[in-house]
Amino acid sequence: MNLPFTLDTDTVWYAIGDGSLDKSAHKLDDFPRIIILVDENTENHCLPVLYHQAPNLKMCDVIRVSSGEKNKNIAQSSYIWNELTRLNAGRDTLLLNLGGGVITDSGGFAAATFKRGMRFVNIPTTLLGMVDAAIGGKTGVDFHDFKNQVGLFVDPVGVIIDPVFLKTLDSRQWQSGFSEVLKYALIMDKDLWFRLNGRHFSEIDDWNTVISKAARDKIDIVRFDASERGVRKNLNFGHTIGHALESFFLRTHNETTHGMAIAAGMICEAWISARLFDFEEDQLNEIVTMIDKNFERFLFDESKIQLIVELMHQDKKMRDNKLYFSMLRRLGKATHDVEVDPQLIEASLLYYINQEK
Amino acid sequence: MNLPFTLDTDTVWYAIGDGSLDKSAHKLDDFPRIIILVDENTENHCLPVLYHQAPNLKMCDVIRVSSGEKNKNIAQSSYIWNELTRLNAGRDTLLLNLGGGVITDSGGFAAATFKRGMRFVNIPTTLLGMVDAAIGGKTGVDFHDFKNQVGLFVDPVGVIIDPVFLKTLDSRQWQSGFSEVLKYALIMDKDLWFRLNGRHFSEIDDWNTVISKAARDKIDIVRFDASERGVRKNLNFGHTIGHALESFFLRTHNETTHGMAIAAGMICEAWISARLFDFEEDQLNEIVTMIDKNFERFLFDESKIQLIVELMHQDKKMRDNKLYFSMLRRLGKATHDVEVDPQLIEASLLYYINQEK
Repeated sequence: MNLPFTLDTDTVWYAIGDGSLDKSAHKLDDFPRIIILVDENTENHCLPVLYHQAPNLKMCDVIRVSSGEKNKNIAQSSYIWNELTRLNAGRDTLLLNLGGGVITDSGGFAAATFKRGMRFVNIPTTLLGMVDAAIGGKTGVDFHDFKNQVGLFVDPVGVIIDPVFLKTLDSRQWQSGFSEVLKYALIMDKDLWFRLNGRHFSEIDDWNTVISKAARDKIDIVRFDASERGVRKNLNFGHTIGHALESFFLRTHNETTHGMAIAAGMICEAWISARLFDFEEDQLNEIVTMIDKNFERFLFDESKIQLIVELMHQDKKMRDNKLYFSMLRRLGKATHDVEVDPQLIEASLLYYINQEK
Repeated sequence: MNLPFTLDTDTVWYAIGDGSLDKSAHKLDDFPRIIILVDENTENHCLPVLYHQAPNLKMCDVIRVSSGEKNKNIAQSSYIWNELTRLNAGRDTLLLNLGGGVITDSGGFAAATFKRGMRFVNIPTTLLGMVDAAIGGKTGVDFHDFKNQVGLFVDPVGVIIDPVFLKTLDSRQWQSGFSEVLKYALIMDKDLWFRLNGRHFSEIDDWNTVISKAARDKIDIVRFDASERGVRKNLNFGHTIGHALESFFLRTHNETTHGMAIAAGMICEAWISARLFDFEEDQLNEIVTMIDKNFERFLFDESKIQLIVELMHQDKKMRDNKLYFSMLRRLGKATHDVEVDPQLIEASLLYYINQEK
C-alpha cells in the first residue's frame, strides 16, 4: 500500500535483552516530561519493576486503562486523550507505554494523534509484545467487530525489550507470544527453529536468546519494508486462516487464544505451502509435530469450513476480492502475494481436523 | 516539533485556478474506488457543480456529515469510520473531501486513520479552505473545548482549488478566508499586499489571481517546512492573540467569525511588531487601516484583557510556559519564535480597544 507519509523506521532505537531497562533508562532523560500508560495488571506487576530499575519515573503521572482486547476501542482512546488534556501534556511530553499489545497499540495511536503528534516509547511486558506488537509501528484500536480498523503506521521513539517482565505472565500469554516466535523461525530463522524444535515452551530456559533473535527478526523486516509493500507481508504467515479461526471461535468459545489461532493457521498454511512448493512431507510433519506439541487444536466439524473461509474475506489485506497468502517455500524461507484457490484453503482445514496427531 | 514520521509533502499535487477541476479530474481515475465526503451545504451547492465537471463521480458513494465547527469532533470521525466500514472501503479507496475546513480537517483525519491509512484528495469549497485549511497536512478534530486537539500531520494526495465554488459563499465565509489572504500578504507577499491594499474584499474582481497567489504562498511554506520546525511558524502571525479572542468571544457572542478574530489578532501583533522591530508608524497605520476596512472590531473593555491573555496559555505552541509569537519585521516579511512579554501583549490589546479608528 502507499502510505501518506514515510516512516522514520531507521531512527527508532531498540534496547533488547537482560538488563536493557537498566541500560537504556537514561535515554528517557531527553524528554522534559513523561507520562506512563498502564492497565490494572501492569500497574500491579510491572510498574514496581520499572520503578525499581528507573526510580526517577516515580515522579511521573500515570494513566491507567482497563486491560483486554475488548477495551481497545475509541472510547479508550478518548479516555487517554482526556487524561493527557487534564494533565496538560504538551507535544514535548513522552508517553511511556508499559504493557502488552493492547497498551502499545492503543497508547501509540492516542499519543500519535494527540495535538497532532506526541512521541511514545514502548516497554512491552508480554512475550507477544516483545517479539511482535511493540515493534514495527502498527498502532490502532478495534472498531465495532473489526480489529485495528482505526489506527496508524507510526513508530515509537524507542522500544525497551527486557525479559524481566516475563515472570509476570500466565500460560495463555506465553502461548500467544510463542506462536509468533515459531512463525519467525519458520519464515526466516532456521537457526531459531533448530533451537526450539522438539521443546515445549515451558522447557525453554534461554528466553533471553530466543526473544532477542525473534525481536531482531521482526526489526530486520520492518526496517526493510516498514509500509508493508513487500517482505513485511511474510509476517502474515499463518495469520490469514488464523484470524478467521480466531473470529469464528471468539463467537463460541471464551477460551480461544491468539496463540492457538495462529498455531492452527500455521498448520493449514504450511500444508498449503507444501502443496504449492517443493516441500518434503517430512519437513511438513516436523513443523506440524512441533506446533502440536505446544498448542491444542480447535475442534470443529467439516460443516463449519465454508463459514470459516467466508470470514477470510473481511481481511484488510484482500485485493480485488482475492485472497493473497504468505507461504513457506521451505523451512526458514517465506514468500508473499501467493493467490490461493478457495478449494485448497478448504482442503487445508479438512487436513487440520482430520489428520491423525 | 519532531514528528514521528516524515511528510511526503513534495509528492502532493495541486491544481489551482479557474478550470482546475476540469483539468485535474483525470487524476482521480488512478483510484479503483472513490467515496465523496460532504456536509449538507456542500451536498446542495457544490456536489452538483462537481458532478457537472466530472460526471463519472455521480457513480460514487457519498458520506454526509453535519456542517459546522461544533460538529468537528470524534463523534463525527466515528460516523465517518462507520460509513467507510459499511461501504466496505479498502485501503485503495480514495476519500474525496468536498467542503470547507471542517470537511478537509475531519475527512483527512478519518481517512488517514481508517485501516491505518486511506488516501484522500481535498477539494476546498470556501475561501478559507482554498488558501489555508486544505493545504499543508494539518488534519484533526476538536476535543472538548480544545481546537484540533486530536489529529495528525498527514498530506492529501492532491488538492484541487477551483474558484468555481466561491459563488456559493456567504459573507462570514468570505471574511474568514480573507483574513488569511491578508496574512500571506503581510508575512511574505508584498506584491499581493499592493494588489489588495485599499480595497474592501467585495470590490475584488481578480479572485483567480488572489487565490492562486495566496495558495501558492502557503504551498511554498509547507513544502519548505511541513512539520513546523521553522518558517511554517510564520503562518501563526495574528493567530496567538486571534485564537484567544476567538475563544473569549465564542463564549459570549454567536456572531464571532474566525476572520474577525484573526483580523483583531493581526492588528495587535502588528502593533507589537512595530514596537520590537524598526517599523515605521505609517506602515503600521496602513496595515491597520486596511484591516479595519474589511473587519469590524470586537468591543470589550480593559477589565477583560487579563482574561484574554490567560486564554493564550492554552495555546498548543506554548513551550516552557512562555509564549512565542510570529512577528512582522516589516511589511511582507515575518519572523518566528519571538518571546513577547505579557505586558506588551496587554498593551497591544489596549491599543486595539482605545485607538481612534
